[in-house]
Amino acid sequence: MTITIDLNCDLGEGCDNDVELLDHITSANIACGFHAGGPSVMAATVKAAAARGVAIGAHPGLQDLEGFGRRELAMTPEEVYQLTVYQIGALQAFTRAADVPLHHVKPHGALYNMAARDGALADAIAHAVRDVDASLKLYALSGSQMVRAGRDAGLTVVCEVFADRSYQDDGSLTPRSKPGAMITEADRAIAQVLRMVNEGRVRSQSGQDVAIEAGTVCLHGDQPDALEFAVRLRAALASAAVRLQAA
Amino acid sequence: MTITIDLNCDLGEGCDNDVELLDHITSANIACGFHAGGPSVMAATVKAAAARGVAIGAHPGLQDLEGFGRRELAMTPEEVYQLTVYQIGALQAFTRAADVPLHHVKPHGALYNMAARDGALADAIAHAVRDVDASLKLYALSGSQMVRAGRDAGLTVVCEVFADRSYQDDGSLTPRSKPGAMITEADRAIAQVLRMVNEGRVRSQSGQDVAIEAGTVCLHGDQPDALEFAVRLRAALASAAVRLQAA
Amino acid sequence: MTITIDLNCDLGEGCDNDVELLDHITSANIACGFHAGGPSVMAATVKAAAARGVAIGAHPGLQDLEGFGRRELAMTPEEVYQLTVYQIGALQAFTRAADVPLHHVKPHGALYNMAARDGALADAIAHAVRDVDASLKLYALSGSQMVRAGRDAGLTVVCEVFADRSYQDDGSLTPRSKPGAMITEADRAIAQVLRMVNEGRVRSQSGQDVAIEAGTVCLHGDQPDALEFAVRLRAALASAAVRLQAA
Amino acid sequence: MTITIDLNCDLGEGCDNDVELLDHITSANIACGFHAGGPSVMAATVKAAAARGVAIGAHPGLQDLEGFGRRELAMTPEEVYQLTVYQIGALQAFTRAADVPLHHVKPHGALYNMAARDGALADAIAHAVRDVDASLKLYALSGSQMVRAGRDAGLTVVCEVFADRSYQDDGSLTPRSKPGAMITEADRAIAQVLRMVNEGRVRSQSGQDVAIEAGTVCLHGDQPDALEFAVRLRAALASAAVRLQAA
Repeated sequence: MTITIDLNCDLGEGCDNDVELLDHITSANIACGFHAGGPSVMAATVKAAAARGVAIGAHPGLQDLEGFGRRELAMTPEEVYQLTVYQIGALQAFTRAADVPLHHVKPHGALYNMAARDGALADAIAHAVRDVDASLKLYALSGSQMVRAGRDAGLTVVCEVFADRSYQDDGSLTPRSKPGAMITEADRAIAQVLRMVNEGRVRSQSGQDVAIEAGTVCLHGDQPDALEFAVRLRAALASAAVRLQAA
Repeated sequence: MTITIDLNCDLGEGCDNDVELLDHITSANIACGFHAGGPSVMAATVKAAAARGVAIGAHPGLQDLEGFGRRELAMTPEEVYQLTVYQIGALQAFTRAADVPLHHVKPHGALYNMAARDGALADAIAHAVRDVDASLKLYALSGSQMVRAGRDAGLTVVCEVFADRSYQDDGSLTPRSKPGAMITEADRAIAQVLRMVNEGRVRSQSGQDVAIEAGTVCLHGDQPDALEFAVRLRAALASAAVRLQAA
Repeated sequence: MTITIDLNCDLGEGCDNDVELLDHITSANIACGFHAGGPSVMAATVKAAAARGVAIGAHPGLQDLEGFGRRELAMTPEEVYQLTVYQIGALQAFTRAADVPLHHVKPHGALYNMAARDGALADAIAHAVRDVDASLKLYALSGSQMVRAGRDAGLTVVCEVFADRSYQDDGSLTPRSKPGAMITEADRAIAQVLRMVNEGRVRSQSGQDVAIEAGTVCLHGDQPDALEFAVRLRAALASAAVRLQAA
Repeated sequence: MTITIDLNCDLGEGCDNDVELLDHITSANIACGFHAGGPSVMAATVKAAAARGVAIGAHPGLQDLEGFGRRELAMTPEEVYQLTVYQIGALQAFTRAADVPLHHVKPHGALYNMAARDGALADAIAHAVRDVDASLKLYALSGSQMVRAGRDAGLTVVCEVFADRSYQDDGSLTPRSKPGAMITEADRAIAQVLRMVNEGRVRSQSGQDVAIEAGTVCLHGDQPDALEFAVRLRAALASAAVRLQAA
């Protein structure tokens, strides 16, 4: 059996290396104009991804350009549902105009984090995805409320793991405010990915082996060495006979 | 043969009488967040229109909340294409979530006016509509470039006429800056509609009879007497055995 | 000694009765474009207030048009400082152009509530006010962190009380989510104001007499009976020989 | 007599090299949130400019983030007045908080171009500047309506010239749509600046010597070689004994 993994990256958010990154990933989460992007960036990014056969996802975020969608906003589930519907639709129109399918939805920043831990918000997002197009996949933090909500809504859920974040004993990410949250050595990050993909396990910060579901690995495109890391990770996955393929 | 006509109105733009107006029209053009509206108003307006069986259209506008989309903005055809794609998609997602079809697209304000006279912008809008969903109808000013562009793009075009505006000999609207542009007496406005609908003619300001294609009549919801006028117009159409029905 | 009180109201937020309300209040908090308003509404509202001799305040809010600035957003004190500086400046320019002084600053909605209980955010607002213009008064919820922060920053603080909200034993407002939070009978609301103004006391929900500092009373302009209530409150204050005057 | 010249550059618009550019210019035009920027970028840019003794100007633009303020928008003089007042005030608050003076106002992009040729819009901007703070200097295209309007309003006007643009016989810039509009060789650009500064003349595209008033030279910070060009221009000016100094 061939093991496959998806590499995803957030695009259309104003970074300059979007096009280069597209050559190294299998799925792209494209900002929808609320936390970044806008009609013209969306059109260009959808086209560039389509031209390279990269699977396209909507990347809805909070309506907060000033804070890049990273600041949590107290929203009702209904409001979360509405802004998710809106943004999926906006991006899907560009994929339709480019004659490629919309493949998935991955919430951005604070919306992703809020929905990872808050079941009602997670349900709101899952219902929005289902109500707009039940064939869309939901990218969700492995082990989170969003995984649960997506499955409850009958969606195909793709569990997201991180190369450069350490994990706790319960499978959650170490909060960024804690020491050791970030894995800065590329070798360790790559080793962590290989183990998550091949064995479904991650070594937690405390040293325990923890089960983890890995359907897609998030690359952070805004890191200075993002491209170099992507190249090395792909080489390591190839050496381990893991095939790259959209989730 | 029964003659039918559509009555359309712009909704979701912040007026208070949206719900009352829905009882008097056959199709609603719902603002998409660029010149007015936003996710929560769009969701509510789509739901209210769907509940009354009113046909739902996207009402894309220029990205100009401060000017309510009424100020002309120098845009390239490509930019016009992109903002139209975006807004149609956003609204279509709400109709899909409400399990009703999106029926048409009618550009708003300055976008409507610019595309009425500028063939390249008209083509941009028509192509955007076609590329997102070629089954969508395009509401366009009778006799304008948009009618031509929509037909060139293979769309079903619905020609829009106005009850409260006077016409020139070439079938164009008298510019608002000219005297006599607005028809303020309800009786005259109703008579003009009846003639356009029944005979395909309008008496121009200079007194000539001009051929005009009338597929839908625009009601201005932001007038103080909008509801009363709608009631009277419907009664007059009923007396003349004209059936109201979405275009 | 004459007792005086200020009546303030939030204006420039899109309600239709702004001008009528101006005849009944002594100070106006004018939205600055982030949660509502914009250059043209601000200009018109400043002019209308100036023409009536109503004291003008900046009413900065969170950058959230969709949520009308009522949804809490996780901001750093630095971000709160910056958005407060920005909005005070924007409004102050209109007062300068109208040749009237800017009199005070009153944060809006979620910003007001967050700063009422969070000392660091309260300090951020107070420092922003002081750094832009130390002569500006700060309107702040009576008994809140903002009162403390404003005084620490050397500002003149005006304590705000509410006619239509009930109070707890510690002088805080009963949260809206609790029964009895709103006082819906105009008579009771007026009696509460008179007692706060004349005696510096309020009867808490549990029936205790609680000390409260009352420098300004907030009128809610978006209530359907706002004008009528303003008229009655003014009459009651006049009967009690309380003079209305900007804080 | 020492000849002096000001070098200005637009900052706070999202380019990465803002801080490096600050070491090479004498005045900075800082975006005010309408076409680019926002509270946090404005605060940081004002601080950085203040720390280097660079004169700070407000750089108001059209409310068009998507188009970066470069698309002309049909606005009334009153609307132009209002958005100029708003943005000057917003930026001035940051200078006041940083305890440095606001030095000038330079409109951005389409607003600059519209006001250069339209006297009524130019008057609107000049009146806005005067009404907010009559001591502010107005940076205006040499030979334009804005120069006239600023002087009519009693403002100190600083005439702006361009190193990298060619001129017509009437002293206007060659439109970008025409061949030869841009001067791409650094040597020619520098020679043009030296002549404008030292002799008050520029060689037009047709080869005529044209009188031109040069108070400030605009550096385009978004060019890839902006820093290198700034260094070379400064060296050439130094060799010619022209002193750099804010206008």
